[in-house]
Amino acid sequence: MEQDDAKLQFDENGNLRHLLSLKGIDAILLTELLDDAEGYLTAPGALPARSQSLAGRTVGNLFFEPSTRTRASFDLAGRRLGADVLNLDVNTSSRKKGESILDTIYTLEAMQVDVMVVRDASDGVPAYIARNVKDHVSVLNAGESDVSHPTQGLLDLMTIRQHNPDFKNMTVAIVGDIQHSRVARSASEALQTMGIGELRLISPPALAPDAGRFPGARIVDNIADGLKDADVVMALRIQRERIGNLDGVPGIDEYFANYGVSYENMKFAKPDAIVMHPGPMNRGIEIEGALADGPRSVITRQVTNGVAVRMAVLDRIGRIMSTQ
Amino acid sequence: MEQDDAKLQFDENGNLRHLLSLKGIDAILLTELLDDAEGYLTAPGALPARSQSLAGRTVGNLFFEPSTRTRASFDLAGRRLGADVLNLDVNTSSRKKGESILDTIYTLEAMQVDVMVVRDASDGVPAYIARNVKDHVSVLNAGESDVSHPTQGLLDLMTIRQHNPDFKNMTVAIVGDIQHSRVARSASEALQTMGIGELRLISPPALAPDAGRFPGARIVDNIADGLKDADVVMALRIQRERIGNLDGVPGIDEYFANYGVSYENMKFAKPDAIVMHPGPMNRGIEIEGALADGPRSVITRQVTNGVAVRMAVLDRIGRIMSTQ
Amino acid sequence: MEQDDAKLQFDENGNLRHLLSLKGIDAILLTELLDDAEGYLTAPGALPARSQSLAGRTVGNLFFEPSTRTRASFDLAGRRLGADVLNLDVNTSSRKKGESILDTIYTLEAMQVDVMVVRDASDGVPAYIARNVKDHVSVLNAGESDVSHPTQGLLDLMTIRQHNPDFKNMTVAIVGDIQHSRVARSASEALQTMGIGELRLISPPALAPDAGRFPGARIVDNIADGLKDADVVMALRIQRERIGNLDGVPGIDEYFANYGVSYENMKFAKPDAIVMHPGPMNRGIEIEGALADGPRSVITRQVTNGVAVRMAVLDRIGRIMSTQ
Repeated sequence: MEQDDAKLQFDENGNLRHLLSLKGIDAILLTELLDDAEGYLTAPGALPARSQSLAGRTVGNLFFEPSTRTRASFDLAGRRLGADVLNLDVNTSSRKKGESILDTIYTLEAMQVDVMVVRDASDGVPAYIARNVKDHVSVLNAGESDVSHPTQGLLDLMTIRQHNPDFKNMTVAIVGDIQHSRVARSASEALQTMGIGELRLISPPALAPDAGRFPGARIVDNIADGLKDADVVMALRIQRERIGNLDGVPGIDEYFANYGVSYENMKFAKPDAIVMHPGPMNRGIEIEGALADGPRSVITRQVTNGVAVRMAVLDRIGRIMSTQ
Repeated sequence: MEQDDAKLQFDENGNLRHLLSLKGIDAILLTELLDDAEGYLTAPGALPARSQSLAGRTVGNLFFEPSTRTRASFDLAGRRLGADVLNLDVNTSSRKKGESILDTIYTLEAMQVDVMVVRDASDGVPAYIARNVKDHVSVLNAGESDVSHPTQGLLDLMTIRQHNPDFKNMTVAIVGDIQHSRVARSASEALQTMGIGELRLISPPALAPDAGRFPGARIVDNIADGLKDADVVMALRIQRERIGNLDGVPGIDEYFANYGVSYENMKFAKPDAIVMHPGPMNRGIEIEGALADGPRSVITRQVTNGVAVRMAVLDRIGRIMSTQ
Repeated sequence: MEQDDAKLQFDENGNLRHLLSLKGIDAILLTELLDDAEGYLTAPGALPARSQSLAGRTVGNLFFEPSTRTRASFDLAGRRLGADVLNLDVNTSSRKKGESILDTIYTLEAMQVDVMVVRDASDGVPAYIARNVKDHVSVLNAGESDVSHPTQGLLDLMTIRQHNPDFKNMTVAIVGDIQHSRVARSASEALQTMGIGELRLISPPALAPDAGRFPGARIVDNIADGLKDADVVMALRIQRERIGNLDGVPGIDEYFANYGVSYENMKFAKPDAIVMHPGPMNRGIEIEGALADGPRSVITRQVTNGVAVRMAVLDRIGRIMSTQ
């Protein structure tokens, strides 16, 4: 079934049609998408890159979970490619009326919305939609439960590659609430595909991932071991309500000391190691504010790369549309 | 007064200026609008039709009742004609501050919003606004209490005409909560203007319309009689809270058996009869899900036609703007 | 510190970069902005003025307080200059997740949002943001606590100048809840800079401003004295919850009689005096409805001028962007 989901992403000619998961996206395609995304970067203050490759197309943002940054990122990516972007606040209207997700999708399809950008708290929703749309419609997963967030994975991969393209001799450490993190999942999938040297997942035992979810990764519960000589350190957002409440998860001070990405803990990593965070940050909990704002942080670069990879993905799926 | 409302829709040269109701829209204009709308249809997956006929104009979506689909439909229709579309979430801001509807309208008028698309739960609001706007502003009714939903009536008429243009020898059956349905009202008005052969309104007695609201229609409470040899069957959405609670309205199972548009009940209609629904659907209550998804259903076609008729109406009222 | 804020608005070449307050904007620049804004006015029903001076730029509307009219005004101003406008509903998403304001700003900056339009209930937020953005980003204050609302001040100044450009021989009376009014603050600053003849602030003693907040203005608590021979009368919105509840503030009828801008009270002003209100109005409380709709009212003209001054400001700050 997961194998099917991976296949589902491509049309009969092997071209990318949906982006549901980074599983099944091979190193060649990952590299091409990142190369395309690099082409969309411009200097700060310069005009952002634009094209008309999606002119006349309509992108629908369907966020069944609230979001500011990912939604804004897809919105700008679509508009900078010339598309009309329709932002649907699905929580407050259709679902209130009890409409099924598929009926919402069929409605948008009938309005000639070509790309559905979907965020949902439930497992399997993007693939379910992808299985049910017409041939000319594409589905992009913008965050799915704790399972997948593929454009986040792409932007993380891009940011890491900018620091060091030699994945095979690199150590990446991801720290925090691994168990509930779709960010960690998608980053891990991309890094494994690129042949990452070593991937370490660091968390309190209570937030460690279920066995088998992160094949090839090393599960660590001690941050000193986990960050040792790491090239890249990625902090994950933790839900505040889990801190100190979940069995085996310490309170804020202890969490910060033992699992926070701080100047103190970064001493274990390589001197030039970069610090990443998917945002929004809980400063003083999973990350030290001054570190996030300091020279080792690439957190805002991740955001910039996020618009660029979304443009790259939209442009890529737009190519099969224009040949229809 | 209703006569006045019908007249109010035209400027002194007899051109369409507001769309408040399908009353007063004659068969010639209905036909022209549908013909124009047909011109905006393109093949699935093809680029949607576009023009610049509203370029430089601003369309304001004022939805005082929540809506996803109608709002999105007007939004796309306006943008595909080159207009700027301003979506105003009026519930959450101005009305919270206690501003009157007219002050909101005067404000938008002063910002050079040329077209006000208005949905409101109260009877008479669109006409009230139309009476108070300046000469160059147009008002489109996007749903008014249980009274009128003229663009819905147009898209229904268009969908029926696509099935069979011979209105005079046709039987249309509308099933469900007729009493509270602006959809039934506008469809009936349009069909009567086109000289429909027979129009039947089927509902439990408790949901039958008040006398005189549907002149020329046959009121029926038995679905077998109502659907007999019908060419077109339109199911109406019923508010879930009315099911089983309103005096004389049966519970879900009984409602579905006696007033649901189902494969079982469709046996009474003509073999090639089409099934319509304005959406959003309560599957398993007023309509059988499999029927809605099956070959007789034209429900998604209604949605596509909805964008097209809204483009036709916007383009039509835009013509008098450009000659000012 | 306030002096610093005033300086902060200009880049090293003395060009306007942020608009945080009308303090520090001299008479020459005020006049230029108003002259530019006049150039954006077109006849009612005519197409609004447009340009491409912000083409490729992105304007982010960050309203941490709800707003319909100011937000719509900035939205249209930005779009009519060719910018992409991103409307962020910041209340409902990021802040729910506990993200800091600066992190939201850094995120938008990284997405190449060039102009941040900020409304916030707290004192100092726009300047705080302006101090922290990168060199190529501009911040526009769209309403800050009870401190400042500079584009409102500009549109008020423009409206007054249209009535009578001879500020030096003019009396302007502002009536209502002066103490809590950012509108009164910004209007006063602009009028003082232009060398206004006499500025009177009329309110019940309980709503009179703190000493020193309105240098040069005459504080009055009797409306007959306050409006005597005034050329311009500006009513302020009062929060309904303050009426009759706040110590020393009378109930609605008494408030309207003693501090309402009505036909009755306008007898004290000059026969051709104009009536202004920033909206949204509480008709029958701080202003008489018929007066607001009558020939002396310039209230809708204020709204029209509002779009024009926002275009002028956006265009002005856009000039330094295009030379980067």
